[in-house]
Amino acid sequence: MKIIKVSASKSYDVFIGTNILDRAGDVLRRACGGQTAAVITDGNVDALYAPRLEESLMKSGYRTVKYVFAHGEASKTPGELLSILDFLAEKGLGRADTVAALGGGVAGDLAGFAAACYMRGIHFAQFPTTLLAAVDSSVGGKTGVNLSAGKNLAGAFYQPDAVLCDVSLFATLPADIFRDGCAEVIKCAVIADHGLFYSLEDPIQPRLEEITARCVEIKSGIVARDERETGTRKLLNFGHTVGHAIEFLSGYKMPHGHAVAAGMAIETRMAVNLGICGEECLRGILAMLRRYGLPESTSRSADEIACACLRDKKRIGDAITMAFPEEIGKCALLDIPIGELEPLLGRSLS
Amino acid sequence: MKIIKVSASKSYDVFIGTNILDRAGDVLRRACGGQTAAVITDGNVDALYAPRLEESLMKSGYRTVKYVFAHGEASKTPGELLSILDFLAEKGLGRADTVAALGGGVAGDLAGFAAACYMRGIHFAQFPTTLLAAVDSSVGGKTGVNLSAGKNLAGAFYQPDAVLCDVSLFATLPADIFRDGCAEVIKCAVIADHGLFYSLEDPIQPRLEEITARCVEIKSGIVARDERETGTRKLLNFGHTVGHAIEFLSGYKMPHGHAVAAGMAIETRMAVNLGICGEECLRGILAMLRRYGLPESTSRSADEIACACLRDKKRIGDAITMAFPEEIGKCALLDIPIGELEPLLGRSLS
Repeated sequence: MKIIKVSASKSYDVFIGTNILDRAGDVLRRACGGQTAAVITDGNVDALYAPRLEESLMKSGYRTVKYVFAHGEASKTPGELLSILDFLAEKGLGRADTVAALGGGVAGDLAGFAAACYMRGIHFAQFPTTLLAAVDSSVGGKTGVNLSAGKNLAGAFYQPDAVLCDVSLFATLPADIFRDGCAEVIKCAVIADHGLFYSLEDPIQPRLEEITARCVEIKSGIVARDERETGTRKLLNFGHTVGHAIEFLSGYKMPHGHAVAAGMAIETRMAVNLGICGEECLRGILAMLRRYGLPESTSRSADEIACACLRDKKRIGDAITMAFPEEIGKCALLDIPIGELEPLLGRSLS
Repeated sequence: MKIIKVSASKSYDVFIGTNILDRAGDVLRRACGGQTAAVITDGNVDALYAPRLEESLMKSGYRTVKYVFAHGEASKTPGELLSILDFLAEKGLGRADTVAALGGGVAGDLAGFAAACYMRGIHFAQFPTTLLAAVDSSVGGKTGVNLSAGKNLAGAFYQPDAVLCDVSLFATLPADIFRDGCAEVIKCAVIADHGLFYSLEDPIQPRLEEITARCVEIKSGIVARDERETGTRKLLNFGHTVGHAIEFLSGYKMPHGHAVAAGMAIETRMAVNLGICGEECLRGILAMLRRYGLPESTSRSADEIACACLRDKKRIGDAITMAFPEEIGKCALLDIPIGELEPLLGRSLS
């Protein structure tokens, strides 16, 4: 098992290992204390892992209560959030109690935002069950729900008290969901670690503990420097400006990682067109996306994508800050004036 | 004009003066920057002061948009919050823009929570129009909405970037609303300043700038030491444990300050019964409440109040932490075991 310490406004440990879900109670007892743990999970994950998590929590003396929402991004709404908050109140959770997110990104974002809001903030622990959630949403404290106007438009920066990634859960994910996480692994490598990038040419299934730990390390290093995303943290948005737009345009039907993959391909083409990186960097990224069966383009038009980008919260005044690769393992931020976005996209879609 | 610096997780200035609403634009420009200011206010205040505020903001180069909600505590709901968030998105506010709360406690709590959630937090400025809001809710960063299970059960600690209290607005408040604020002034005096307390025997109308400033100073000193209310800040809850219960039991029809006044009287009687303070302290507080036409009892039963207290977020496990006066100008925290609450209340109601 590896333990990575995240030092943000709150310090906490991320536990990464194989078959460690049964240690959840111990981890929670030490990181959160309290009497009650409210497990928030979706219908799919509930059947698979909730009993194991609840058993471990009860063994450590917790009373557990459980809220199950319908699987999928469509549940990441203000209405579902309110219903969780009402549930926590109804079950009598107090300031010393804990919300435990069990599931993918939706469970983490929704439960984390509920933990942040309920009584202005109670304890929060994350138990990601997908590779995507482990390397992306479960570290860094971004929580939130979607508004009808756009993704994650309402939320909070709220760091968990502990994160436990049992990588044995990821090994059994459907291929498509696993690939979704690979997109974020590739992103981490492109922005910060060319050694990791080239290692991804070998299968990652046997090395999930090591790969997850490296990605968490990269992300936590960046988050520690800029928790509230005023600068450096925007590097983590590589692929996400265009990716979020594509996801939004699909009505959130396209999985996050797939949209980010197409976003990385398009944003790297933009970088080539802007003279920020060379063709060989683009070729390397496209080859890696193909290797993992991820998309490298979209059927959406430059006009549609530009409009969707401007609804996003990354816009500051008349420009949008984007992360572009300079080479594999190194990205830089650049402000793109709003007026230049659509023509640049037009030249970069494929 | 007085300027009081609050040093919490974010540092900001509270400007207190007479006829200073027209300086709002200057203050916002320096504290927040950005292009758009969204004024959030209620129907009553809108007609009285929104045009002056908007004019000042526009003079300082802001585009202003305005959201008006129905006056009263009944608007402090998750539904109203969502509707403000949708409004901010629809009006295209970005991360560098500002939410400006204009009104009493409801405007501040609602707009502050919206500012905290929208894009995970944008700029926020407070323009309290009541004495109550100026000395209480506009400083310290508590924001939130009520759930059906209780008051302020969903919210965030979110400090404003600036607060501007134009005390000339309070001078024209209806007597009842003004008295509501006096209850919080009395509370500040009881917990921290016996000199202020005895000065309240003279009319405060001609000294609003000085009195408001002193209360803000007391509150900001406490908040700076314990922003997230893990200890010391609970002193500010004197009168509020029982007060919130009474307010809840009235269906939020009893004004906050009046409920807190009755709460202070009852909690001081509890303190006498616990041997924490003497009869003369109780007599002094009751006389002051009477002087300001505030209630000193409730028609609710000990059982009803105890039940309502336990729904409150002040409960930690099997006890509830309450603030009791030791003498005028000095309060202390004490954990009351849940089982002892009702009998103690029973002996303290009148």
